[in-house]
Amino acid sequence: MSIYKERIESLIGLMEERGVNYYIVPTADYHNSEYVDNFFKEREWLCGFTGSNGTLVVSKEEQGLWTDGRYFIQAEKELEGSGVTLFRMGNEGVPTIIEYLKKHVKEGDCIGFDGRCVDCAFGQKLETAMLKLGVTLNYELDLPSEIWTDRPSLPKHEVMILDQNVAGVKMSDKMKSVIEKMEEEECDELLISKLDDLMWLLNIRGGDVECNPVALSYGFITKEQMYFFIQDEEITDEFRAYAASNYIVIRGYDEFVPFLKEYEMKDRVMADGSNVSFLIYKLVSEKAEFVDKPNPTELLKAIKSEQEFALMRDFYIKDSVAVTKFIYWLKHNIGKQEITEYSAAMYLDNLRRQIPGFLDLSFPTISAYGENAAMMHYEATETSFKVLEPKNQLLVDSGGQYLGATTDITRTITIGPLDENIKRDYCDVAKGMLALANAKWLYGCSGKNLDILARKPLWDRGMDYKCGTGHGVGYILNVHEGPHNIRWKYNPGQKEAVIEAGMCVTDEPGVYIEGSHGIRIENVLVARNAEKNGDGQFMDFEMLTFTPLDRDALDPKHFTKEELKAVNAYQKSVYEMTKDYLTDDERKWLKKETAEL
Amino acid sequence: MSIYKERIESLIGLMEERGVNYYIVPTADYHNSEYVDNFFKEREWLCGFTGSNGTLVVSKEEQGLWTDGRYFIQAEKELEGSGVTLFRMGNEGVPTIIEYLKKHVKEGDCIGFDGRCVDCAFGQKLETAMLKLGVTLNYELDLPSEIWTDRPSLPKHEVMILDQNVAGVKMSDKMKSVIEKMEEEECDELLISKLDDLMWLLNIRGGDVECNPVALSYGFITKEQMYFFIQDEEITDEFRAYAASNYIVIRGYDEFVPFLKEYEMKDRVMADGSNVSFLIYKLVSEKAEFVDKPNPTELLKAIKSEQEFALMRDFYIKDSVAVTKFIYWLKHNIGKQEITEYSAAMYLDNLRRQIPGFLDLSFPTISAYGENAAMMHYEATETSFKVLEPKNQLLVDSGGQYLGATTDITRTITIGPLDENIKRDYCDVAKGMLALANAKWLYGCSGKNLDILARKPLWDRGMDYKCGTGHGVGYILNVHEGPHNIRWKYNPGQKEAVIEAGMCVTDEPGVYIEGSHGIRIENVLVARNAEKNGDGQFMDFEMLTFTPLDRDALDPKHFTKEELKAVNAYQKSVYEMTKDYLTDDERKWLKKETAEL
Repeated sequence: MSIYKERIESLIGLMEERGVNYYIVPTADYHNSEYVDNFFKEREWLCGFTGSNGTLVVSKEEQGLWTDGRYFIQAEKELEGSGVTLFRMGNEGVPTIIEYLKKHVKEGDCIGFDGRCVDCAFGQKLETAMLKLGVTLNYELDLPSEIWTDRPSLPKHEVMILDQNVAGVKMSDKMKSVIEKMEEEECDELLISKLDDLMWLLNIRGGDVECNPVALSYGFITKEQMYFFIQDEEITDEFRAYAASNYIVIRGYDEFVPFLKEYEMKDRVMADGSNVSFLIYKLVSEKAEFVDKPNPTELLKAIKSEQEFALMRDFYIKDSVAVTKFIYWLKHNIGKQEITEYSAAMYLDNLRRQIPGFLDLSFPTISAYGENAAMMHYEATETSFKVLEPKNQLLVDSGGQYLGATTDITRTITIGPLDENIKRDYCDVAKGMLALANAKWLYGCSGKNLDILARKPLWDRGMDYKCGTGHGVGYILNVHEGPHNIRWKYNPGQKEAVIEAGMCVTDEPGVYIEGSHGIRIENVLVARNAEKNGDGQFMDFEMLTFTPLDRDALDPKHFTKEELKAVNAYQKSVYEMTKDYLTDDERKWLKKETAEL
Repeated sequence: MSIYKERIESLIGLMEERGVNYYIVPTADYHNSEYVDNFFKEREWLCGFTGSNGTLVVSKEEQGLWTDGRYFIQAEKELEGSGVTLFRMGNEGVPTIIEYLKKHVKEGDCIGFDGRCVDCAFGQKLETAMLKLGVTLNYELDLPSEIWTDRPSLPKHEVMILDQNVAGVKMSDKMKSVIEKMEEEECDELLISKLDDLMWLLNIRGGDVECNPVALSYGFITKEQMYFFIQDEEITDEFRAYAASNYIVIRGYDEFVPFLKEYEMKDRVMADGSNVSFLIYKLVSEKAEFVDKPNPTELLKAIKSEQEFALMRDFYIKDSVAVTKFIYWLKHNIGKQEITEYSAAMYLDNLRRQIPGFLDLSFPTISAYGENAAMMHYEATETSFKVLEPKNQLLVDSGGQYLGATTDITRTITIGPLDENIKRDYCDVAKGMLALANAKWLYGCSGKNLDILARKPLWDRGMDYKCGTGHGVGYILNVHEGPHNIRWKYNPGQKEAVIEAGMCVTDEPGVYIEGSHGIRIENVLVARNAEKNGDGQFMDFEMLTFTPLDRDALDPKHFTKEELKAVNAYQKSVYEMTKDYLTDDERKWLKKETAEL
């Protein structure tokens, strides 16, 4: 019998003991983090499916896994022998989990899950649907943990307090701004479970989530003090003193749920329904009014301070240089030694590691060759990769965490002869990237107003890329950060925020032709105030990324005179900003690479 | 004593008799129409203020008029001697009407107004605020009508049934689509008070509102029949027969309110809260659930049929030709005879009147010379106008109602030497107009996505125009029509609708420099489907307007090669589409005017 079949059977045994008819295992930690630590991978442990998105629903009669199009093939393979049925989300006739449950449950049934891992919106929808059918929810269960004997322990990394010159704004000032927002909403208490928001507010960083320098924790803020829930092992003496002097009361990470049950809440408790778990929502709304508002930290965190920018500018240049050096190495060594998608990524990662102040990658480096680049979520691994040949292009999307920046950059690098149609696509992507970077607009615009600038060269040809053009970027924090972004269309639940001066945003149009090629060029921009006059406050972008566009893929005939001027201006700035960080050979090459077209 | 003072005193006398402490007189008919017939001008009759926006609030202690920035100077003059205090809306420290009332009312007070003329949102806000203070509303009063002895009667024009080839879609088919929408919303009844929606649905036109070919009426639709409330004098035998064969029950216009009080409504009544009056809202919501949804007619009406387009294309060319002939006349006669803003407008209006099928202007022609063109709401009249000199530019914004189109076009015409900076502004406006007209986009975009294309040449120079870029256009109906538009920013209450194939929209960027000059170029576009592929349904615009851009204001040095190509292509199309409608002299001139730059 497959190990997964055994594990699921044990789970079903436990379910029967506890009177649970359906048990749901989602893929999330307690904080809705983008990356999930091994401790939280109960779904993977139970059924073997390793994808980043998937929910297992177990009953005695049937076990189903719901996942999206990216993972259909992988899931099919990984679920083999487990007895689990694959539900291909989005395919015609495939029910959603709630539709499935609605069809199968009987009055009096009980559905169990760990409410800490289930997002608020799904939990509320499920509850409403099941209530009508006379089905109860038990959302304080963690059944797999009772049978997962060799479960890894929770990650436990000591927190680091940022120096004042790195943090930018003092914690006490940040807290003041947060309390002002609470007062605006007439709330006495604020609950934050989003990890990057907590790190930002406390001017600390952790190491509990891959690529995100955050510590597993919760915050409960009153006007007098802040309760901060974190594992004992993560606290240093220094932090203990820092907390004491900042009105922070430290409690254990596992004391958070009991705290919510015992604490006498005031009338109105503010919390972000799009981030807190269903359990938190239930515990708060049983005792007080759950005032569903974005965390005040979200917008404050997104607007970077001048001190943060000073460090960011510096690290962005060093990070840009690492990628330039990588491009130089790749173009000069392809065909001379074996280079694979994976080894190329390792080479680049190593260049970053040598930068003083490097902490981690900001996400696992994407290195995709040729037609692999057309898959937006492609990941080469140590055991599964393509060997590069001296032709076509390698797309590399990468970034680092530094003690003064989080970076994100994509370059699509020509490593040999290139089809004319790919060159044309490359030129249009470059045009779009620069058109957005050179935008000027009136304060009040969101990404919805600006997106068409990046997409225009492709739309004019009847082409598109099926994703947003840009996302916010954190500061020594998550590489994806809200509330703003650059999109032409907002799906339900996606926020459309005005672009404020000081916000960072990526600018990454692309072309993805299945089975043929993929191109993406990504720079990071900072919105800033331009002139203010009778017509209003104008705004534009400052460029943070200085790595050359690929000369081998740029053909002047695809550009207008003005577009070519923009290319030349950018290339020139790349040379000027980075030449002092290069070896003589690299510098000579970059001079040619960025010479006027 | 001023006549207005007398009238207001009579009103106060009546208020005392009826126990009313505050009486509100807004500026609106019963249908929230853009233009208001003299019958409805109670506010003007009472205080002398003639502006299109203003609300009078009368109490024994004080009489106040609220109006916006456009009218501050005019109101001050017109209110002289009336004893009415001017409240300058939007100025610092000036209370809104509700703030004012909140401050002055006492518990037990009564506020009176004619609920038929007050919009739903204002009425609801007022009611909520006053309820808290123990103040009652009497919204079924029309006190001025009791003292306005020589009040004009309601306009009474016979309705006209559109021939099937003009109407496009049969009334019965339109009704089917409307009932489908009602069913989607699970409503048994639909109330429509918006006049153009009613005309569209019934395939009729009227003559009760200036420039809008609509008849004062109400509609109440059930799944079996439609009650249509209209003045007896407006009904022809033909219409009576037409109604009978289309399940339309005709009732008197003044029977509508009694009908709402007596009729047994079903559970859910659909109505558009942004259009119906406060009285309708109250009467419906007392008896049923008021389901506040856009009129289903709004979107259906906005998407023109192929039959409508066939006629529109033809009339748009004839209308474009009238403006071209006007430009020719103006450029050849300026300096030779006295031409004023007003006489120029009359000349153009007469050219339109000669087009077979002409019904009316679609709005009063705006003819603004030199610095007057910087005022967006400037109107020259028979007694107040500027004499044109052979220099600078005349801005003319005009349109016609035809038996097959409603048109709207603006040209800014050079009639003598022109400053270089004005030329530059003209070129940027032309660029923006053509950039939007030549846009290509994916289905799903709204005007918010596209607006930046028209604004970009100005935004790049730190300039803006303080209005939307475009509005929907009716078909033998109102020149301003929803639900779509082209704007970069949506104020509360403004809809952001996806642009559907078949929607007409104006494209009218501009430059307005106070005290110096104003430029606007306005064409009408139709959205249509372009190619559909794996990336989605692409869309673009068809041009409807063919009147030349002003060669005297176009300087090639302000354009890129590609922009100049767009100008030349448009100019060429103007010549080709219209040359057969011109005299030999006009044609020769147009050939030169549109020759390649």
